[in-house]
Amino acid sequence: MGIQVVRFERESKEHWGVVSGENILVLNGTYKSLAEFLEDGKEEAKKIYNQENVESLSLNEVNILSPATKPARIICQGVNYSTHRSETGVEASRPPFNMIFSKADSSLSGAYSEIERPPHVKLLDYELELGIVVGKEISEPVKVTDENLHQFIAGLVIVNDVSARDVQLPQGQWLKGKSFRTFCPTGPFLYLLDKEEMPLIHDLKLDLWVNDELRQSANSSQLLYKPAETLSELSEVMDLSPGDLIVTGTGGGVALNLTPEVNELIANLSISYQQKLDLLVENQLKSGKYLKDGDTIRCKIKSADGVIDLGEQINKVVRNKEKSLINSK
Amino acid sequence: MGIQVVRFERESKEHWGVVSGENILVLNGTYKSLAEFLEDGKEEAKKIYNQENVESLSLNEVNILSPATKPARIICQGVNYSTHRSETGVEASRPPFNMIFSKADSSLSGAYSEIERPPHVKLLDYELELGIVVGKEISEPVKVTDENLHQFIAGLVIVNDVSARDVQLPQGQWLKGKSFRTFCPTGPFLYLLDKEEMPLIHDLKLDLWVNDELRQSANSSQLLYKPAETLSELSEVMDLSPGDLIVTGTGGGVALNLTPEVNELIANLSISYQQKLDLLVENQLKSGKYLKDGDTIRCKIKSADGVIDLGEQINKVVRNKEKSLINSK
Repeated sequence: MGIQVVRFERESKEHWGVVSGENILVLNGTYKSLAEFLEDGKEEAKKIYNQENVESLSLNEVNILSPATKPARIICQGVNYSTHRSETGVEASRPPFNMIFSKADSSLSGAYSEIERPPHVKLLDYELELGIVVGKEISEPVKVTDENLHQFIAGLVIVNDVSARDVQLPQGQWLKGKSFRTFCPTGPFLYLLDKEEMPLIHDLKLDLWVNDELRQSANSSQLLYKPAETLSELSEVMDLSPGDLIVTGTGGGVALNLTPEVNELIANLSISYQQKLDLLVENQLKSGKYLKDGDTIRCKIKSADGVIDLGEQINKVVRNKEKSLINSK
Repeated sequence: MGIQVVRFERESKEHWGVVSGENILVLNGTYKSLAEFLEDGKEEAKKIYNQENVESLSLNEVNILSPATKPARIICQGVNYSTHRSETGVEASRPPFNMIFSKADSSLSGAYSEIERPPHVKLLDYELELGIVVGKEISEPVKVTDENLHQFIAGLVIVNDVSARDVQLPQGQWLKGKSFRTFCPTGPFLYLLDKEEMPLIHDLKLDLWVNDELRQSANSSQLLYKPAETLSELSEVMDLSPGDLIVTGTGGGVALNLTPEVNELIANLSISYQQKLDLLVENQLKSGKYLKDGDTIRCKIKSADGVIDLGEQINKVVRNKEKSLINSK
């Protein structure tokens, strides 16, 4: 059976541990990055249940950090569930290409961190996604299949791909609108997969609530481009390293809701940027679904049989307290 | 006066050096990344002209590597020169936002490396750009101005933002089409700027030739979003670290030439991906300007007075020899 790993802070020091019920069994080794943990700490973590004199702490008494660490590549798949494709106004069926973009690694934050809304952002949205932690250096084309997937994937994490729609969509390229600091709550647990559990990756339930209202409910079986083929394709383009994240896309139920008409408006080259932005904001705010300061988002990912459980994220939305220095757009 | 730094390989070992005429003065220190060189090697490099018994090699007898190293963030500005905006079919004037995207760091390659065209790519294009090497950790909003720019910029490099237009444009998000391995020739020199030279950053001449035909000729004075304001804005979004690259956009003269009609076609949601791709390829190949296997690209960036000289890139285009494992798109 796989194990749930946590990275946490206690007395300003970072540690790694393994979850046991409501407790953390603390590892002796210290690892300054996820890559280092995967290289040197995994064996200690797997054996910890059989060790004696292991320090145990309550999960509640420490500050849980993102198990993913900087520097890392965060490679994301876009519109990769039919339910989400429909609500963004595009054809629901599997598209002819795997849409790939990235988030800045400085957007990584903990499972219980606050999500800081930049003051100018009006369309703040959530996207619950299955995050795959790369387990092996990939520096040339490789053929990844469900049979050898365990060689390339170290584990799984919950990722909330928080998005400022009023930056992302009118500016065309998504990096900026998806990369503000705190826009990538990750964890709480890194679930280190056993080889035998690999098939369960295709049957994980993903649920997200805003203020206790269930908004998203998906199953990883619905992924249009699967992890193995995605890793194969990415290997033909770029290098991936242990500790990098592949974020596999979100299911239906986000705040964003685009009709083909609104998409045409966004794509229309004869409408000015400001007009586009104003029309988008006005159209989108009607639903009342976008995140407001004070809202709480809760996310869970687990297998139906409960064997794989990535834990629960709880993130509160707050206004970014940093004074904006320029009129950032 | 600033100095020209090179990273190079000799007998399978990596070294750093400083250019002196046609020679390299070899540094004693070894640095495994650009960040490490900036931290620990810069002082040795600046003093090397006054040292005795320094080993000297001819620039021609070593393999020059990219001065930028993995891991690094490669943050790019899109359509940031009016001349390039016009040829892409959008309004030439400064747009209301600074378009930001990224390239994978594994696309980094040397100034004399081959550019490997993936077998399926028909619209391979060049983009000569001024690359700015970040010199300081940025982890919160900062106000960067022309007066304090020297605190944030370590130096300058030539970057060719090689782009597969038939992947980049029909797929909407640019990361994949701009990230294939070898798609980011960087160097040969890292020009370490002196504080007094900082104003020259606004008066650099950028020239690119394909098979000795001058295709691009721009001046950094034409940048629509300038380095200082770009760094200020980026600081409000994401972290930047020493050794990261900001790639400032290309001037006119690339192979790509889009009319508003072609842009409407690309943006049209009722046309299928395959149809779009076919029409784009057919339309674009007419000019005969796209890169073909065997073509040689040559790039230079220097100040009019010759004080700042980033060297010359010479890259040959070849067909990627890796056998494609899947039908990558």
